[in-house]
Amino acid sequence: MNADFVISDIEYVVCCDGSNTILEKGAVAIKGSKIVWVGSSIDIKDTFAPGVSIISLPGHILMPGLVNSHTHVPMSIFRGLADDMILQKWLNEVIFPAEAKLINRESVYAGALLSIAEMLLGGTTTFCDGYFYEEEVARAAADAGMRAVVGQGVLDYPTPDNPEPERWMKRISDFIEGFPSSEIVRPAVFCHAPYTCSPDTIRKAHEFCVKNDLIFQIHLAETIQEIREVEKRYGLTPGRYLNDLGVLGEKTVCIHGVWLERKEIQLIAEQHAKLVHCPESNMKLASGVADLPMWLQHRVVCGLGTDGPASNNNLDMFGEMRMAALLHKGIRQDPTVCSAIEVLRMATLGGAKVLGLSDIAGSIEVGKSADLIALDVTVSHATPLYDPVSHIVYSAKASDVRHVWVAGRQVVRNGELTTVDLSNVLETIKKLFASKN
Amino acid sequence: MNADFVISDIEYVVCCDGSNTILEKGAVAIKGSKIVWVGSSIDIKDTFAPGVSIISLPGHILMPGLVNSHTHVPMSIFRGLADDMILQKWLNEVIFPAEAKLINRESVYAGALLSIAEMLLGGTTTFCDGYFYEEEVARAAADAGMRAVVGQGVLDYPTPDNPEPERWMKRISDFIEGFPSSEIVRPAVFCHAPYTCSPDTIRKAHEFCVKNDLIFQIHLAETIQEIREVEKRYGLTPGRYLNDLGVLGEKTVCIHGVWLERKEIQLIAEQHAKLVHCPESNMKLASGVADLPMWLQHRVVCGLGTDGPASNNNLDMFGEMRMAALLHKGIRQDPTVCSAIEVLRMATLGGAKVLGLSDIAGSIEVGKSADLIALDVTVSHATPLYDPVSHIVYSAKASDVRHVWVAGRQVVRNGELTTVDLSNVLETIKKLFASKN
Repeated sequence: MNADFVISDIEYVVCCDGSNTILEKGAVAIKGSKIVWVGSSIDIKDTFAPGVSIISLPGHILMPGLVNSHTHVPMSIFRGLADDMILQKWLNEVIFPAEAKLINRESVYAGALLSIAEMLLGGTTTFCDGYFYEEEVARAAADAGMRAVVGQGVLDYPTPDNPEPERWMKRISDFIEGFPSSEIVRPAVFCHAPYTCSPDTIRKAHEFCVKNDLIFQIHLAETIQEIREVEKRYGLTPGRYLNDLGVLGEKTVCIHGVWLERKEIQLIAEQHAKLVHCPESNMKLASGVADLPMWLQHRVVCGLGTDGPASNNNLDMFGEMRMAALLHKGIRQDPTVCSAIEVLRMATLGGAKVLGLSDIAGSIEVGKSADLIALDVTVSHATPLYDPVSHIVYSAKASDVRHVWVAGRQVVRNGELTTVDLSNVLETIKKLFASKN
Repeated sequence: MNADFVISDIEYVVCCDGSNTILEKGAVAIKGSKIVWVGSSIDIKDTFAPGVSIISLPGHILMPGLVNSHTHVPMSIFRGLADDMILQKWLNEVIFPAEAKLINRESVYAGALLSIAEMLLGGTTTFCDGYFYEEEVARAAADAGMRAVVGQGVLDYPTPDNPEPERWMKRISDFIEGFPSSEIVRPAVFCHAPYTCSPDTIRKAHEFCVKNDLIFQIHLAETIQEIREVEKRYGLTPGRYLNDLGVLGEKTVCIHGVWLERKEIQLIAEQHAKLVHCPESNMKLASGVADLPMWLQHRVVCGLGTDGPASNNNLDMFGEMRMAALLHKGIRQDPTVCSAIEVLRMATLGGAKVLGLSDIAGSIEVGKSADLIALDVTVSHATPLYDPVSHIVYSAKASDVRHVWVAGRQVVRNGELTTVDLSNVLETIKKLFASKN
């Protein structure tokens, strides 16, 4: 068999495939961008030609790269600008003025690259974004070699990159047409929310996505204020309202879902729409607690997201997994809900399904893209190691990530980025945004 | 002025003192075990003799070491042995049999040293423990140079180190008498809980603590089952019951407090007893959510703890701060509760007050012990850095900790332990506990 390299001697290969395969002393072979073989380290000699390149990683877990299913990467430049504030005050007095002043092509590219650096170093290999000037996010992801689905923002309000909101269709058409050619970055539409987009905008944006085979992202049922506003305007809760508009379809990714009722969760499941859970942001902004156990009970296809770094305030998917696994046990007073494996699947194959990438990413299987991460398990908090899945969700840290591959290309080696000049990124950011003034 | 060394050029010195002082371009001088000067880096030349030893740390935050106010460090050997189980099943089928089989002097020392390694590397400089064979925990802390308050466990059941429960008073007397002499490790009593100790045991153990000037730790109101059991036996909720026993005093540290009523929180505040919040363990074991905002409103002296590594599953106080700051915002639907500075104070000076150490630790002030940690803020998730307190609580990670001093002695240098041979500890643990069998 032919391979470009084989990662071998791995303590545990945690595949996150359909049967949650875990291989001890496992090995994975890569050719081009793809996984071509998954097996036992002892079979390497009999399977590959003698000269095959071997990367020996004893003392590591190898697993699929994590999928951050919802974020706004350029907002890293606002991280920690203000916290612990009422949402409307935070938006109106801090975030909106900062966006008006600071968001442009240059800052979006710089902020996106900063976020991408943080995500790759922390074991995230795919992200789904929604913001403005998303061409720049696409460019940053392609430059860094990170898989991404980047959603151009649509609102019925003037935005930094579209001062005339009625021209939103032209904006997204131009975005798709001029989209850089990349094997790993795909365009999408991010229709902001039911309270910021008219029924007509939502319907047409969704139609556009279906026609062009694009993911249609929308914030849904994030706050109680949204529920009241949508009920007041349209006489329906937001989930029912989207269903009535006919936009709950396979391409639709609903984000947050904090206030969804059981009936709305059923509708989402039936229509094969997707849900993304962002527990840390929901906590920090005091939106409330989404009923993830109910989502899982209804077998909704769901992913996990950090939300933007201004409301989290980091892009650490290990932390997000931990929060998702712990939070609902406490709320439900049931330690069996949101098990480690359920949460790990949301952060890998679940996210890939949400983003329409499950043929490509989210698990270690022959034929899939080599989006892989290796975690050091020779650290104090990984010892003893009884159960690799428990370890990944409850004990592991982003800083345990030593090696990362996206589509077969090594983007993190020994904890250092190979595709991004981090000190240069940090310098640029510091020059642009180091002070509140 | 005389100093052994001066830590200088610090981006932000976050003092956690009474007025939450933050110094930009600050410096801290240490002589022996103590902080002797806190000032501006530019004043060093005029303050100290020319030859003074300088440790220059630009790109770092210097802050007091974190105080883990409640844990069971030897239980690191059971981390991840089983998760996502009903509490009684987890205790009866996993933890109690494992303790009966594995807990002895050797395993307690090994497990404690493993936990101490994890805590020091993650910026915790003080911990308060409660378990069996606590002499061994004291020895591990003294060997590693970590500040600790170690509580010998008292229960009315046979325990690994005290098979005859009625002899518990002799056990703790022997423990205190034979306690190793150390500047940084103090003995205490850990009276397990109102449902595992009789009224007589609780009263006498508390008396013993008052007489010997020791911290009296007790689990309190952790689960709804405990509330029911204590009400059934004594006709009172657990907080009222302890108050009736006369054991809510200055030396008393109540742990968890998940189910305390407002009146009980008032009683604890009035009697100057202390509370410790362990949110991650409370979530993982599905105990429920303690009303931390109400504790703070009643000005209870309170600290933050990880609880044991078998129910967390790590000893990361940065993660614990983050959980404490995020959780209650979401539950209360109020983003202003449990602010970053309130949570940071719980994890530093608050914890020191809980443990009777506020003259010594918990803040950067002249005359206090040099228990200090330096965080690297040249990392992607610390850029830009608008507010160091927000950064510490919402974005920073245990892995950002580069240097740690306890009582003036450097125990972590460039992210490596200086007092503990980590690879040796990991080898020992692996030999003893690497498999479930």
